[in-house]
Amino acid sequence: MAKVGIVMGSDSDLKVMSKAAEVLEKLGVEYEMTILSAHREPDEFFRYAKSAEGKGWRVIIAGAGMAAHLPGMCAAIFPLPVIGVPMHTTSLGGRDSLYSIVQMPSGIPVATVAINGGANAGILAAKILATFDETLLNKLKAYSEEMKESVIKKAEKLAETGYRDYMDQM
Amino acid sequence: MAKVGIVMGSDSDLKVMSKAAEVLEKLGVEYEMTILSAHREPDEFFRYAKSAEGKGWRVIIAGAGMAAHLPGMCAAIFPLPVIGVPMHTTSLGGRDSLYSIVQMPSGIPVATVAINGGANAGILAAKILATFDETLLNKLKAYSEEMKESVIKKAEKLAETGYRDYMDQM
Amino acid sequence: MAKVGIVMGSDSDLKVMSKAAEVLEKLGVEYEMTILSAHREPDEFFRYAKSAEGKGWRVIIAGAGMAAHLPGMCAAIFPLPVIGVPMHTTSLGGRDSLYSIVQMPSGIPVATVAINGGANAGILAAKILATFDETLLNKLKAYSEEMKESVIKKAEKLAETGYRDYMDQM
Amino acid sequence: MAKVGIVMGSDSDLKVMSKAAEVLEKLGVEYEMTILSAHREPDEFFRYAKSAEGKGWRVIIAGAGMAAHLPGMCAAIFPLPVIGVPMHTTSLGGRDSLYSIVQMPSGIPVATVAINGGANAGILAAKILATFDETLLNKLKAYSEEMKESVIKKAEKLAETGYRDYMDQM
Amino acid sequence: MAKVGIVMGSDSDLKVMSKAAEVLEKLGVEYEMTILSAHREPDEFFRYAKSAEGKGWRVIIAGAGMAAHLPGMCAAIFPLPVIGVPMHTTSLGGRDSLYSIVQMPSGIPVATVAINGGANAGILAAKILATFDETLLNKLKAYSEEMKESVIKKAEKLAETGYRDYMDQM
Amino acid sequence: MAKVGIVMGSDSDLKVMSKAAEVLEKLGVEYEMTILSAHREPDEFFRYAKSAEGKGWRVIIAGAGMAAHLPGMCAAIFPLPVIGVPMHTTSLGGRDSLYSIVQMPSGIPVATVAINGGANAGILAAKILATFDETLLNKLKAYSEEMKESVIKKAEKLAETGYRDYMDQM
Amino acid sequence: MAKVGIVMGSDSDLKVMSKAAEVLEKLGVEYEMTILSAHREPDEFFRYAKSAEGKGWRVIIAGAGMAAHLPGMCAAIFPLPVIGVPMHTTSLGGRDSLYSIVQMPSGIPVATVAINGGANAGILAAKILATFDETLLNKLKAYSEEMKESVIKKAEKLAETGYRDYMDQM
Amino acid sequence: MAKVGIVMGSDSDLKVMSKAAEVLEKLGVEYEMTILSAHREPDEFFRYAKSAEGKGWRVIIAGAGMAAHLPGMCAAIFPLPVIGVPMHTTSLGGRDSLYSIVQMPSGIPVATVAINGGANAGILAAKILATFDETLLNKLKAYSEEMKESVIKKAEKLAETGYRDYMDQM
Repeated sequence: MAKVGIVMGSDSDLKVMSKAAEVLEKLGVEYEMTILSAHREPDEFFRYAKSAEGKGWRVIIAGAGMAAHLPGMCAAIFPLPVIGVPMHTTSLGGRDSLYSIVQMPSGIPVATVAINGGANAGILAAKILATFDETLLNKLKAYSEEMKESVIKKAEKLAETGYRDYMDQM
Repeated sequence: MAKVGIVMGSDSDLKVMSKAAEVLEKLGVEYEMTILSAHREPDEFFRYAKSAEGKGWRVIIAGAGMAAHLPGMCAAIFPLPVIGVPMHTTSLGGRDSLYSIVQMPSGIPVATVAINGGANAGILAAKILATFDETLLNKLKAYSEEMKESVIKKAEKLAETGYRDYMDQM
Repeated sequence: MAKVGIVMGSDSDLKVMSKAAEVLEKLGVEYEMTILSAHREPDEFFRYAKSAEGKGWRVIIAGAGMAAHLPGMCAAIFPLPVIGVPMHTTSLGGRDSLYSIVQMPSGIPVATVAINGGANAGILAAKILATFDETLLNKLKAYSEEMKESVIKKAEKLAETGYRDYMDQM
Repeated sequence: MAKVGIVMGSDSDLKVMSKAAEVLEKLGVEYEMTILSAHREPDEFFRYAKSAEGKGWRVIIAGAGMAAHLPGMCAAIFPLPVIGVPMHTTSLGGRDSLYSIVQMPSGIPVATVAINGGANAGILAAKILATFDETLLNKLKAYSEEMKESVIKKAEKLAETGYRDYMDQM
Repeated sequence: MAKVGIVMGSDSDLKVMSKAAEVLEKLGVEYEMTILSAHREPDEFFRYAKSAEGKGWRVIIAGAGMAAHLPGMCAAIFPLPVIGVPMHTTSLGGRDSLYSIVQMPSGIPVATVAINGGANAGILAAKILATFDETLLNKLKAYSEEMKESVIKKAEKLAETGYRDYMDQM
Repeated sequence: MAKVGIVMGSDSDLKVMSKAAEVLEKLGVEYEMTILSAHREPDEFFRYAKSAEGKGWRVIIAGAGMAAHLPGMCAAIFPLPVIGVPMHTTSLGGRDSLYSIVQMPSGIPVATVAINGGANAGILAAKILATFDETLLNKLKAYSEEMKESVIKKAEKLAETGYRDYMDQM
Repeated sequence: MAKVGIVMGSDSDLKVMSKAAEVLEKLGVEYEMTILSAHREPDEFFRYAKSAEGKGWRVIIAGAGMAAHLPGMCAAIFPLPVIGVPMHTTSLGGRDSLYSIVQMPSGIPVATVAINGGANAGILAAKILATFDETLLNKLKAYSEEMKESVIKKAEKLAETGYRDYMDQM
Repeated sequence: MAKVGIVMGSDSDLKVMSKAAEVLEKLGVEYEMTILSAHREPDEFFRYAKSAEGKGWRVIIAGAGMAAHLPGMCAAIFPLPVIGVPMHTTSLGGRDSLYSIVQMPSGIPVATVAINGGANAGILAAKILATFDETLLNKLKAYSEEMKESVIKKAEKLAETGYRDYMDQM
């Protein structure tokens, strides 16, 4: 049964939001993903957001851009954690999305990650579920270990080849 | 019958939004005003926004601050014009409110006025109604005339007294 | 008879402003479109802006970039609603256009839409005219219905194909 | 046993961070609160952050201002969710704190709330714990209900007294 | 005969704009000062701006705030130099005024000074007139000399008293 | 004899600053152009800036990017008008250049034009010289007339061809 | 013999810059402090900056606000490290000072500290001198130890009194 | 023995940080360069930062992007000067990196250079070492002389060829 719902306001957000899905797959967390617009289909949105708890979702990841209302409106309806992913935008670089998501008024938090931070949204969802799931926590620790190893390998390669060759090979 | 609905996310917005009410009163436009939170009472909000057209409202003026979703969510449900008033905020000066209101995605416009622009929201609502109301249009023209006279009087006073005395009397 | 005037400060704004025209055509609203510079031909501008009410225009859509004065100057002269479209700019991303249009002083509102929001300006103009035009209102509702259907179809496609195939087909 | 750790970089953050504590007390969630500076006592910080999991903490709430590294460094060490609270700052309004907290690189998310959003940090921590705690979830639902009632009461008062009296009584 | 016109959009700009007048008085440059709103009295504005050259003005200093169109519209009509003074604003700190004044499109420059830079606008006007007025140029050089002396005196005082006493006496 | 000096901090500014030269050539104003770095050759810079008045220059146009000190340092030394041209920058879009040039302290104004506003700097220099040069003033008026004609022609073309064909031909 | 020169553009910077002096006194580093304006007394400035190396200065700390050119111009002349302190400004919060100081072009670095970061400028100067001064380095380590102790004491007090009493005593 | 350590958070920073290495090589300063992530390998980071003084490093140059904690965390551990290089970022242009590095709290300065200012970081490191190394100081003076010559040559070429040919040859 899916424990995480991934929703996004438009299919133009898919490239970023798919990173959240990839992370959850890697960590073995079931998820459900859909396109859901609070602006273009408010009735559908309401029905969907209200059904989320009943379906067993424990976390919603919501991505949106510009005047990004989807994460905040999910948080108004869904009683469990909502993670917001602000999309990069051409004119304001994603500040519009970021402010629309993070500056929530007292009482209705959205757990906001970086602009275009799809992967981090997935990891954060997993960390939330891991608060009571030892197996998942261990997978997250292994994931951190992998990250560490990857940096160490790069540092070793840089030490061996020197920066000129390293850059040539990038 | 009220043709304009004035809604705001919190009573802390009342000082700004009351300016819209004052303008409408001055111009003889009936309005209804309430506090309505898309975040804190999503069901109330939905019911209210859906009932607006049936009540005869032709325009909604919606004021909100920070991650300001109220104007945009009204525009998602109400089929006629929604005017958005971004509230000044301590930390970001109202940029958060402004971006959350003006940067609406294609299909769901919000007619945005200046930060804390309550009076202008009232005037804009009257201008919208005046597109088919000659009497109201004439009142708006008289209002413009008044503004003009007020500037002329100030210029005359400045010419007469000089800037030093003018400033002393401010 | 044209009820909406579309003006822009430069033909470089045409790509954005043509979206307003397309929307109005789709909704069956007659419009007139021209290039009109408050800075480069102030006399022409004044004559034109003053003639707008007499020609039967009910709404002006004005697009401009950088120190964008066209919408505000239209609003100073034309007594009915003026919709402002801030153009994206290379250096400041359109913040200069946005602030020059939205931050109007008390008494002279400009109904501002998103940066490069040409389509939304057209929809907002139609919504304003629909306040007293049932037929147009129904067309706008149908337009909203179309938007909803389009999102639903995308969500269905995503559910069927999965995000990897969906992205491949984008 | 405390499940939430509240840490802050300086006692000047206490006024904001105490709101998180108040919320957790209200919801019956045990917490531990301390002052902990990643910059001024890096060794203490490391020891503390490393001991957090062993002490049974499931969530860390970290508040910091300016070049706010505390939340991100907690997230680098603590494997479970870290919530970041950006402090308002005089010169940059808290943008420095916000960017330093939310713009975390891929792999190490910080769940960021609004500038000075201490109360929301507490609520978010509770929501995270509520993903597997039905009792806490019900308390959160009751909290939401209270918020709703509070807005409804204000709306009723506004309807009864009118905005002029309402403002006089604020 | 006045060679410099000082105009401002509102009497709230007078405190800043009076600094320009003071400088011109000190330097013996005749000026005329008035309140003139491009938004609230466009006809008056046009008449005034068109009459400026005939009255013998060689430079206009125009101050305005928010969506500040006055300097740019003066520059569209008056063929000689226009100096723009962006007013500080509560919400955006004067960025709105600054961008609305400095970001003029190609062909219609406004010589922009600092936010609230009334005194500098007066000095710049004098420098412009001094391009062909040796006496005025000498006065400007004397003014610079005064500034230099003032700094030197402060440096001497600091050297004598030490910073603690200096600060006590501020 | 050259009356205008055009200086720039680096040859990377040449593309923008050449627009100033082109305008001055078109208007028949003699100028001298060079590369001059206040940072990389402070002695050369000082000598040059000090010699400017003696060479008969009446106006300096100074372009620079990032922490742009050239215009302000010219203004500290040269007693007549200095026009500053802020260069666009990759990271901050030219805000760094703009603020470094326009925000001059009281006493030392720089007449700032738009980011990358080379052409406007040339026009502004000509306007300054035209305060006492009727022939040049008439050339500037003819230039304005040309701009007006160009807009009118574009408006006529748009009216004739319609926006679709117009855009195809762009 | 003074090894550090502290210069500032105006005595309004003294409150911030005195913090640098206090730190240096505490650490036993001799310094010389003066007011020096690159804009208002360019000749004095040049002479002073050129004499700095000969006087034995090893580091210059330069504070300035708005279009802050003093640090960068010092760096253009003085061959050893220059530390820049951007002053807070009313309108732009110190972004103008910060960008004018930190965004130096390639070849002429300024070691920039936080807005109003006078104390940190003093510490940085001491760290620079400590690269070859073991005694000073030990004093800096003791200073760090003090900071650590101060945080630990606050944490202990918070643990003892609880946050409510702690806040009451602030 | 290396006196300068160059560290960076990710190999994507290498293009910028290699400029620091190139400058140090040119000036004959030995350095050590590695990839070191405070976020992805906090234990490695701590060990490394703690070992730096013992290895004889006198200066650390640390580059990082987004929520850039590496320079500040180095400064928390390493008692000698740390130079921070903020990386350009796609969404916020490097403001996030800049604020995360420069806005350090009192007590722990980071000597911040321009966004992407790798070369300047190298020069600043050399200037710091030159405070007690006459030979290095002379090399830095020669470097400045080279910069001066390069500008003079460009100015001469511009004078000879004119701006049109100069631009053609760029």
